[in-house]
Amino acid sequence: MLITLTTDFGYRDSFAGIMKGVIKQINPDAEVIDLTHGVPPQDIMAAALTLRHSVPYFSDGAIHVVVIDPGVGGTRRPLLIECEGNYFIGPDNGVLSLTVRNKQKLVIELTNSEYFLQPTGSTFHGRDIFASVAAHLSRGVPIGAFGSASPNIIELQVHEVVRNQNVLVGEIIYIDGYGNLFTNIDEQDLGSLPCNQIHIAVGSTSIRDLKASYDSVEVDQLTAVVNSWGVLEIAQCNGNARQRCGAKVGDRVVVTCVAKSSGGF
Amino acid sequence: MLITLTTDFGYRDSFAGIMKGVIKQINPDAEVIDLTHGVPPQDIMAAALTLRHSVPYFSDGAIHVVVIDPGVGGTRRPLLIECEGNYFIGPDNGVLSLTVRNKQKLVIELTNSEYFLQPTGSTFHGRDIFASVAAHLSRGVPIGAFGSASPNIIELQVHEVVRNQNVLVGEIIYIDGYGNLFTNIDEQDLGSLPCNQIHIAVGSTSIRDLKASYDSVEVDQLTAVVNSWGVLEIAQCNGNARQRCGAKVGDRVVVTCVAKSSGGF
Amino acid sequence: MLITLTTDFGYRDSFAGIMKGVIKQINPDAEVIDLTHGVPPQDIMAAALTLRHSVPYFSDGAIHVVVIDPGVGGTRRPLLIECEGNYFIGPDNGVLSLTVRNKQKLVIELTNSEYFLQPTGSTFHGRDIFASVAAHLSRGVPIGAFGSASPNIIELQVHEVVRNQNVLVGEIIYIDGYGNLFTNIDEQDLGSLPCNQIHIAVGSTSIRDLKASYDSVEVDQLTAVVNSWGVLEIAQCNGNARQRCGAKVGDRVVVTCVAKSSGGF
Repeated sequence: MLITLTTDFGYRDSFAGIMKGVIKQINPDAEVIDLTHGVPPQDIMAAALTLRHSVPYFSDGAIHVVVIDPGVGGTRRPLLIECEGNYFIGPDNGVLSLTVRNKQKLVIELTNSEYFLQPTGSTFHGRDIFASVAAHLSRGVPIGAFGSASPNIIELQVHEVVRNQNVLVGEIIYIDGYGNLFTNIDEQDLGSLPCNQIHIAVGSTSIRDLKASYDSVEVDQLTAVVNSWGVLEIAQCNGNARQRCGAKVGDRVVVTCVAKSSGGF
Repeated sequence: MLITLTTDFGYRDSFAGIMKGVIKQINPDAEVIDLTHGVPPQDIMAAALTLRHSVPYFSDGAIHVVVIDPGVGGTRRPLLIECEGNYFIGPDNGVLSLTVRNKQKLVIELTNSEYFLQPTGSTFHGRDIFASVAAHLSRGVPIGAFGSASPNIIELQVHEVVRNQNVLVGEIIYIDGYGNLFTNIDEQDLGSLPCNQIHIAVGSTSIRDLKASYDSVEVDQLTAVVNSWGVLEIAQCNGNARQRCGAKVGDRVVVTCVAKSSGGF
Repeated sequence: MLITLTTDFGYRDSFAGIMKGVIKQINPDAEVIDLTHGVPPQDIMAAALTLRHSVPYFSDGAIHVVVIDPGVGGTRRPLLIECEGNYFIGPDNGVLSLTVRNKQKLVIELTNSEYFLQPTGSTFHGRDIFASVAAHLSRGVPIGAFGSASPNIIELQVHEVVRNQNVLVGEIIYIDGYGNLFTNIDEQDLGSLPCNQIHIAVGSTSIRDLKASYDSVEVDQLTAVVNSWGVLEIAQCNGNARQRCGAKVGDRVVVTCVAKSSGGF
């Protein structure tokens, strides 16, 4: 049974390794895969987006554990969600919400301490609750045993793209390790524009046209592609667009339709 | 058989991957888990603490390999220690000492080159000796085959907490990737104070009271908790206490008992 | 079947985790080992050297996937190479070339989209082509099924060491996470010098003699060793030679033979 881990633990400490130890003690046959432990500290949105765009590449029945958990030990609830044959375990702070949105799901609040490590501390539920519950679940414990159904969860909101005639106004929602700027503008949004040529502006920078690949421009030039998440991305060929543009998450991105006949701008 | 790896190799190079290749060549059934490869370079104390607080979460019989080894190729001895049903492999520089202290143990100096890679270099014993020995051990080679008993090992010392009437004087011993400040003051030390309210000072910063969770203060405020190691930790809610306090390992932390009746300070 | 991954994805994102999901969906029995995901972005030479010096420590029959791929989606070809019983999968940009040079090999261009993920995007062939092909290969699909033989590949060139009487002129070719400076001068080059004592110069820094271990000099002093790649390395005892020397890849390193009778310099 496959268990994935997504956390903001970073790579300096042994926190992720400890979670694997807990899992393996309970279920030696579990197989653990790191999605990433490099989510920026406390960045719930980055983790939620990462999870949403990773889950489709895993087998049905996988257990996805997410520990971006600044509210650990406080009033936020620990959750187990079954959704379309997959399982999601983590805090109720929105981090699971984008992945299960608009889908049939069963939400359980983890209240049965029989499946927690004892003693259960208040600062590392990744170890004491989430890893332990994931391991028991992977051994076949039915999800109803972990707590009671509790359908309402905290929902994150990704801003919607605004369309105004021949213009799309979106924003940067994620920046990857290369410095590529991921936007909330997807292929469908781009397809809805009544033109074949577009112009993309982020801050004071503007880019002409979508390209099929990063190297379709000269080295160090900015380019725009539809990326592996299926969204508009601004990248620098062999470089770092974040540094180049001084961009950050939330910055506005404007796509303007260029009339086919205009010939330039 | 489970083998864990703890090193200061970082994540840029393939050194940890190479150790896994060596292990798998010798024992394809071995399962390798990374505790962390992010120990600060040559920081023996950080690795020793990491190991001590991670081992309890792994199954009995696990083999823990630790390669923080600035003395590689010199006179420091390579060791294999059996202790309470677990195995520890690494250099004799103190890095294993905190985990096996005050416990029954059998210490073997690794002298039998039959279980080393050939040729055996002088700069990467993680590959040529420690990974190779761990893999052979995981296949059932008896520990006496690797060398001779050699009971004395180099011991690290964690400074002791000093208690003076109603005051505990300790220090920062570890700083995690979030910037949380771990002290040498544990739950028992705190429990020994004759009061329910305490005041914690680190440098020019002071914090009132222990809290149960990080988010029991406002965002960006400092707080103090008993953390997942069971020690007093100073943290910043959704922030980085190391940066906030300009703190470093070795800085003094003073816990002062506040009389219940005083009502404030 | 063992599959290794070497990429420049870094550790912030889930790209490597996604590749593992793809592999496991196709072949649940595949075992995946990370060589490293910390290759500097787009640094084809660093990855090529890393691969060359890691492969010998893995079992025959391993599948090594390398994704340093700035040309993804463009005209560069995706390759599968069989060489001395091992398999190499990655882009035709030179990243595989150092490992298979001067060896019998069969090179296949990956053209059979039956073994790609569908739809196949243009920005993440690590996911859509390389991981997918590696997984199918690990299940026993014969390599001829993935495309047609295509013997010529792009070759990287490591500069050769120049020997001039009693002097070797080489350069820094790789810098590891410790800041150790790896040169292109190997044991054989050093052995060819007609003397037992040498003097090593990098920039304005000079070092006397090869040592057997890092700690054979005082802390913070520079030293020179033959390292785990079998090449001359300049290191700082318990420190970072890159920072100390302000060195970078490509910097010249000169080894000068010192007459045995000279007694000093």
